[in-house]
Amino acid sequence: MVAAREVGVGLVSVGWMGRVHARAYGAVRVHYPDLAVSPRLVAAADVSEDARTYARDALGFERTTSDWREVIDDPAVDVVSICTPNFLHHAVALAAASAGKPFWIEKPMGRGAAESAEIARAAAEAGLVTAVGFNYRHAPAVARIRELVRSGALGRITNVRVALLADYSADPRGALTWRFRSELAGSGVLGDLLSHGADLAQYTVGRIAETTAITERFIRERPLPGSASAGHFERGSDTAPTGAVENEDYAALLVRFESGAVGVLDSSRVAVGPHAEYTLEVYGTLGSVRWDFQRLNELQIADTRDGYRTVMAESAFGDFSRFQPGQGTSMGFDDLKTIEAQLFLRSVLEGRQLAPSASDAWAAAEIVAAAERSAEARSWERIHEVSGETTIDA
Amino acid sequence: MVAAREVGVGLVSVGWMGRVHARAYGAVRVHYPDLAVSPRLVAAADVSEDARTYARDALGFERTTSDWREVIDDPAVDVVSICTPNFLHHAVALAAASAGKPFWIEKPMGRGAAESAEIARAAAEAGLVTAVGFNYRHAPAVARIRELVRSGALGRITNVRVALLADYSADPRGALTWRFRSELAGSGVLGDLLSHGADLAQYTVGRIAETTAITERFIRERPLPGSASAGHFERGSDTAPTGAVENEDYAALLVRFESGAVGVLDSSRVAVGPHAEYTLEVYGTLGSVRWDFQRLNELQIADTRDGYRTVMAESAFGDFSRFQPGQGTSMGFDDLKTIEAQLFLRSVLEGRQLAPSASDAWAAAEIVAAAERSAEARSWERIHEVSGETTIDA
Amino acid sequence: MVAAREVGVGLVSVGWMGRVHARAYGAVRVHYPDLAVSPRLVAAADVSEDARTYARDALGFERTTSDWREVIDDPAVDVVSICTPNFLHHAVALAAASAGKPFWIEKPMGRGAAESAEIARAAAEAGLVTAVGFNYRHAPAVARIRELVRSGALGRITNVRVALLADYSADPRGALTWRFRSELAGSGVLGDLLSHGADLAQYTVGRIAETTAITERFIRERPLPGSASAGHFERGSDTAPTGAVENEDYAALLVRFESGAVGVLDSSRVAVGPHAEYTLEVYGTLGSVRWDFQRLNELQIADTRDGYRTVMAESAFGDFSRFQPGQGTSMGFDDLKTIEAQLFLRSVLEGRQLAPSASDAWAAAEIVAAAERSAEARSWERIHEVSGETTIDA
Amino acid sequence: MVAAREVGVGLVSVGWMGRVHARAYGAVRVHYPDLAVSPRLVAAADVSEDARTYARDALGFERTTSDWREVIDDPAVDVVSICTPNFLHHAVALAAASAGKPFWIEKPMGRGAAESAEIARAAAEAGLVTAVGFNYRHAPAVARIRELVRSGALGRITNVRVALLADYSADPRGALTWRFRSELAGSGVLGDLLSHGADLAQYTVGRIAETTAITERFIRERPLPGSASAGHFERGSDTAPTGAVENEDYAALLVRFESGAVGVLDSSRVAVGPHAEYTLEVYGTLGSVRWDFQRLNELQIADTRDGYRTVMAESAFGDFSRFQPGQGTSMGFDDLKTIEAQLFLRSVLEGRQLAPSASDAWAAAEIVAAAERSAEARSWERIHEVSGETTIDA
Ligand SMILES: NC(=O)C1=CN([C@@H]2O[C@H](COP(=O)(O)OP(=O)(O)OC[C@H]3O[C@@H](n4cnc5c(N)ncnc54)[C@H](O)[C@@H]3O)[C@@H](O)[C@H]2O)C=CC1
Ligand SMILES: NC(=O)C1=CN([C@@H]2O[C@H](COP(=O)(O)OP(=O)(O)OC[C@H]3O[C@@H](n4cnc5c(N)ncnc54)[C@H](O)[C@@H]3O)[C@@H](O)[C@H]2O)C=CC1
Ligand SMILES: NC(=O)C1=CN([C@@H]2O[C@H](COP(=O)(O)OP(=O)(O)OC[C@H]3O[C@@H](n4cnc5c(N)ncnc54)[C@H](O)[C@@H]3O)[C@@H](O)[C@H]2O)C=CC1
Ligand SMILES: NC(=O)C1=CN([C@@H]2O[C@H](COP(=O)(O)OP(=O)(O)OC[C@H]3O[C@@H](n4cnc5c(N)ncnc54)[C@H](O)[C@@H]3O)[C@@H](O)[C@H]2O)C=CC1
Repeated sequence: MVAAREVGVGLVSVGWMGRVHARAYGAVRVHYPDLAVSPRLVAAADVSEDARTYARDALGFERTTSDWREVIDDPAVDVVSICTPNFLHHAVALAAASAGKPFWIEKPMGRGAAESAEIARAAAEAGLVTAVGFNYRHAPAVARIRELVRSGALGRITNVRVALLADYSADPRGALTWRFRSELAGSGVLGDLLSHGADLAQYTVGRIAETTAITERFIRERPLPGSASAGHFERGSDTAPTGAVENEDYAALLVRFESGAVGVLDSSRVAVGPHAEYTLEVYGTLGSVRWDFQRLNELQIADTRDGYRTVMAESAFGDFSRFQPGQGTSMGFDDLKTIEAQLFLRSVLEGRQLAPSASDAWAAAEIVAAAERSAEARSWERIHEVSGETTIDA
Repeated sequence: MVAAREVGVGLVSVGWMGRVHARAYGAVRVHYPDLAVSPRLVAAADVSEDARTYARDALGFERTTSDWREVIDDPAVDVVSICTPNFLHHAVALAAASAGKPFWIEKPMGRGAAESAEIARAAAEAGLVTAVGFNYRHAPAVARIRELVRSGALGRITNVRVALLADYSADPRGALTWRFRSELAGSGVLGDLLSHGADLAQYTVGRIAETTAITERFIRERPLPGSASAGHFERGSDTAPTGAVENEDYAALLVRFESGAVGVLDSSRVAVGPHAEYTLEVYGTLGSVRWDFQRLNELQIADTRDGYRTVMAESAFGDFSRFQPGQGTSMGFDDLKTIEAQLFLRSVLEGRQLAPSASDAWAAAEIVAAAERSAEARSWERIHEVSGETTIDA
Repeated sequence: MVAAREVGVGLVSVGWMGRVHARAYGAVRVHYPDLAVSPRLVAAADVSEDARTYARDALGFERTTSDWREVIDDPAVDVVSICTPNFLHHAVALAAASAGKPFWIEKPMGRGAAESAEIARAAAEAGLVTAVGFNYRHAPAVARIRELVRSGALGRITNVRVALLADYSADPRGALTWRFRSELAGSGVLGDLLSHGADLAQYTVGRIAETTAITERFIRERPLPGSASAGHFERGSDTAPTGAVENEDYAALLVRFESGAVGVLDSSRVAVGPHAEYTLEVYGTLGSVRWDFQRLNELQIADTRDGYRTVMAESAFGDFSRFQPGQGTSMGFDDLKTIEAQLFLRSVLEGRQLAPSASDAWAAAEIVAAAERSAEARSWERIHEVSGETTIDA
Repeated sequence: MVAAREVGVGLVSVGWMGRVHARAYGAVRVHYPDLAVSPRLVAAADVSEDARTYARDALGFERTTSDWREVIDDPAVDVVSICTPNFLHHAVALAAASAGKPFWIEKPMGRGAAESAEIARAAAEAGLVTAVGFNYRHAPAVARIRELVRSGALGRITNVRVALLADYSADPRGALTWRFRSELAGSGVLGDLLSHGADLAQYTVGRIAETTAITERFIRERPLPGSASAGHFERGSDTAPTGAVENEDYAALLVRFESGAVGVLDSSRVAVGPHAEYTLEVYGTLGSVRWDFQRLNELQIADTRDGYRTVMAESAFGDFSRFQPGQGTSMGFDDLKTIEAQLFLRSVLEGRQLAPSASDAWAAAEIVAAAERSAEARSWERIHEVSGETTIDA
């Protein structure tokens, strides 16, 4: 029997993502027994008492606190998951870096390129591996797309089409939460969804060099929330006072990759119809592929001129066979986070960056920043280079 | 804080299903914190050393053994998961029953109606709740179908269409494992897949009264396996001696429900094209619904004459919101087993039968048995009644 | 220039099908210039004055009449299209046969097997080629299926799945027209839809040997129609007196082909959801195919174990390139009738049976008859042999 | 009986489109008997003898010629169909205008905005109605989209997504025909496909005000054709000398509508996978719709936040019920041309512009021109206004 290496985990914020992170740590062992890691859920922080109770009773954290700094400082905590609302990412990440603790941080990493750069640099200076919540990368079908692209099976890549159409803000009575305020959230759909799409495009096809973009706010006023901590799904009353939405509901980008490939990305958080339709399409001179997050386990492959084959995820698709024995049996979203947790822990244990990194997140933030500059200036903008270790072409 | 009730778990066989059961126990707590149960993985049995190592190191069982009786007899074991090949179900289940331990058993429960009856009766006589691996029931979309049917939203149910098309035995070079031998497996696709379909039909629409059926063996010889323990995916060599397939590759049934509704069920384990296409369609005078296991999170609903709406699983769909926060984010197959584990543990803790029961499995076995009689006699056959507690109409 | 051979056309009944026949004759020339036929629309009969006006003014018939016998007797009429309601098929067809005029008759040819047999025999005795409205055969995708089956590309055929789900009678307020009365229509959905499905199965896979079936009337009373000539879409008033539906809304058949292949066919005219969902699925040891009339131009082909490719109709698909230059541009339903008209005219001109024949229609009627006997007797029934020229295996 | 008004038709070029035009004239009468028009196929011109033979023998033109001017000058010709390759559109159209004959011209109308403007102005000055081959407009589903948009059923329109992905030039061995040479074809995919998309967007949502675009040539050299008249599908030999492709294979546009709505259009003629996938998606604050030309008869409608309903074309969809009696029975591509022919003839007979007009084509050409300027200058470009009668907002 191989002795499993124990890793002490600290979690900051026990909301949707915090819970998924905690479960993912727990699932690494059963899906990746060869990694022989045994994550120990040491400490969790949240300002909400319910969240803390859940962390202790349901997730099994040894201790909880309302002060996230205690998690960072806890000597039994070896690594930190940062799952706060966006406005706290920066502070928590810098604290983790200065404590020398590798962190797995949710996206968008910073409220903008500047914060993202600071976080990535802090991690690099501290010599830390990192992980970022670019979970769509881990879909086995995306791994397969990357392989088809990089192996040349699709020929020379000519163009991509990426769309991220969501309805989470489609209801105009949805309250004006932190997500709609630039001070707290940074950009709107650009950071929240399009950054995922930009990362997917770069991860599969390669680096984006420049962009021209438009952004729009379609719903410009929303009812003020009843409380500061109002979540995603709180609805304002019809008589509630309203406030201004400060960031974009929609963005569309034309892009040119360094390779010469071109493409289109567009994203909306107020679409009525699609729910979480995140699609990636890559076209090459020999074939094309299409994937939709809503049909996680399916990939459309045209590797001849005879049309698309619907291929169900199978052993040739990334880590699929870590999860299911054969085609037709579905993985779920949470499994993507297990893959991410594993990449993070493996990066920590092996001392090399395997998970999507802070620099990858910064790179995505630079695409967002260039899109913002472009939407303002009505011009093509080059994407600024980032430093540190990226995994896009790893 | 509610003190969680500890339940000692014993697992017999650590193959595909055994591992899924073990993970499912672990996941109940985080998805159903209100149940306040804390399953403790006490003991696991398997004849394979690799499986035992995995049980201990990856799944975290406290002890392992090659003799399943030790699991049953272990005083710290309160409940038992029976995940052996079919031919051991009966012996293990009777042992569990006589030890007074509630069990969660994989399907097909027995190698035929007789064995199934014995198991169900043994559990009933011991006053035990049970659970059976009719996992497709737990898909939130199936829960929604049941609700639409039972609430009358689809009007009077006129007919159903159920198909279970798989390719797991499509390769004629696939070895002649236990699944193809009647002594070890009982029936072929009837028990393995069609029993799921029969249960789905009964669970959503109600009891089936009679059937007429055909069965066929399409691949009549297969290479003998290299070893007795050969698994599903072992391929025979081209020069290997072959033996006779003893049970059916295909079955099709016409059925009449007690309500007067009618329907068609068909199933193949040698289809080339579909992988695990298990579809349930229910038609009523006011609407119809369609579901495919391969698109676990989608439901086609026609509740007017305007055509089908593709509805992504959402909070109105069974336990969906225990797993995901909103439409478009996918649950996976393993989550269905978490729901099943929860129903089993809740049945145990609350002392009432909530999970699909041994009598439900027996009822499905009687449909299989009637289909076999019918295929033989070329006649309509009534489905024999079962005793004990069923949950079909619960 | 090739001199086109003129053929004088007589049309009996100018309803939906009558109009499609007339247009189809007109379209043969442009799609099949090599046939060098020039159909001349000579005479049309209908009891409705509107229909006659339309025949003359819009369709361009030289003369019209309310008495169909005048069409048959018209010396300029060489061939006859029989598009009456079912109850007149027999009389008109026998008259055409005795006048020595080849006819193209709509399905179901007779009100039952006996009438169908008489018609087929009359044509055979008169030495006439015939055509029957089995239009789904002519879909290029169906031609492709047949080719894949007959060439062995799908291996040995194991089983078929055919469904014909329509909603044309789904509204319970739909009036009790001739279609619901056995004296006028013969059987219900069996003759109307399932006969198409039976023909498709036989045309692609081969002759069906025996069947066991169920039939059901789901809507047993309907409002009496306002007038005798009430059409398909007339709705009864809520206070109208009602009468009994005399034929089946639903049928399901298990079948065994002469080749040993087996299968399932089911059909409903009262489904709520599908409109004209006529699907044909053929499974073999090397692959499978799936087609849906509602997506006329698409074929799902699995010729490996890698899943289905969606292949848009193309030049390898029957007569597709007679109609469209490339994949993605759609043929419509009416084009199938043009192909049928061409087969009929070619049969006439070349003196050999190419179109689906009266004997084919009789063969389908025998399947219907066997299904009716089986539903009554609850037994397997052999399909009676037919005489005359069939094209199923041509 | 209404006496039908005879209209003498002249056709210039009897290729794919020429044949479709001719058939469409013939079909107007049967589908639109109320228009009481009787097109008479008078004269057709083509340089190919085969084409002329076909025109006479199969299509039934009274006379044919190799000189298109004879068609224009023919006194029995009242209206002219212009179906030549692009480089002749201008000359033929100006000749028709100066002869005072209304014309129906294929797209792209001119080789660029300048030619298009001249043609539109010539028609306007001659007081002629016109028609342009923007056939996708006529799909009943598109008519339905327009209605849903214009009635406010989708709320305020926020954004559109239009894609036109074709594979007609995907084979790099495809010969360097006139389509790839700017002198003969004008632009590449911009004029050929994107102009259709631009028109669809304007026709459903309203006028586009400005754009920023990229264009790309992915296949830069092609084998020289064997003959000057080489068609679409000719393949060059591997040793043939090659020449430069002069116009773009791909274009992508960001657009802003006058209404404030925004959108993305992209198009490729070298995609491998889609064949003629022309999709239109319109998103509004209350719902969204999606249509794909390859599934001509289907429309995805989300008019609530519950997801998309697949609605088969029905009587509420434009002119559907002129062609088919009910949902599920397919119209084909050629039917769209019949609708177009009817709009043209109705425009002529009623003296008012109902068909897509020369000014509409010019408007689309201005979008193409702005896209070309933008791709060159890397800037946003305003779309120039056009004069004359457009039907976009009619
Ligand atoms: N990778 C992905 O696909 C997704 C990423 N996210 C990202 O994850 C992050 C968290 O989002 P959700 O989990 O959806 O939010 P949530 O609203 O579900 O949870 C946020 C949690 O943070 C807690 N919190 C607030 N202030 C705090 C403080 N000062 N200290 C400690 N805890 C505090 C709240 O009490 C709450 O429990 C965001 O950055 C978001 O963009 C969210 C959803 C999906
Ligand atoms: N509910 C569902 O959807 C599914 C149910 N099943 C059912 O689960 C059962 C197990 O199937 P799988 O897990 O797929 O099989 P598997 O072949 O993956 O695992 C069977 C395990 O049993 C062990 N075993 C064999 N003899 C044993 C003995 N004497 N004592 C203890 N262990 C022994 C083997 O070493 C192996 O680890 C079957 O009854 C099958 O029908 C299987 C797959 C899906
Ligand atoms: N092949 C196919 O897919 C289809 C076949 N059919 C078949 O075509 C036949 C006709 O059906 P539809 O055209 O839908 O019916 P319809 O109701 O549209 O037309 C029937 C026509 O027959 C006329 N008619 C009634 N009595 C007559 C008489 N004594 N003499 C002359 N004309 C008379 C009516 O006035 C009416 O114009 C039926 O047998 C039907 O089953 C119908 C639809 C599709
Ligand atoms: N609306 C639509 O969806 C479509 C529009 N088109 C447009 O239709 C036009 C024609 O395209 P196709 O029919 O596909 O081309 P095609 O290559 O099939 O036919 C062109 C015809 O023009 C004839 N021609 C060439 N030079 C001539 C001359 N000097 N005088 C008379 N005839 C001459 C050729 O012999 C040939 O028969 C193009 O402008 C094209 O862009 C084409 C296809 C689809």
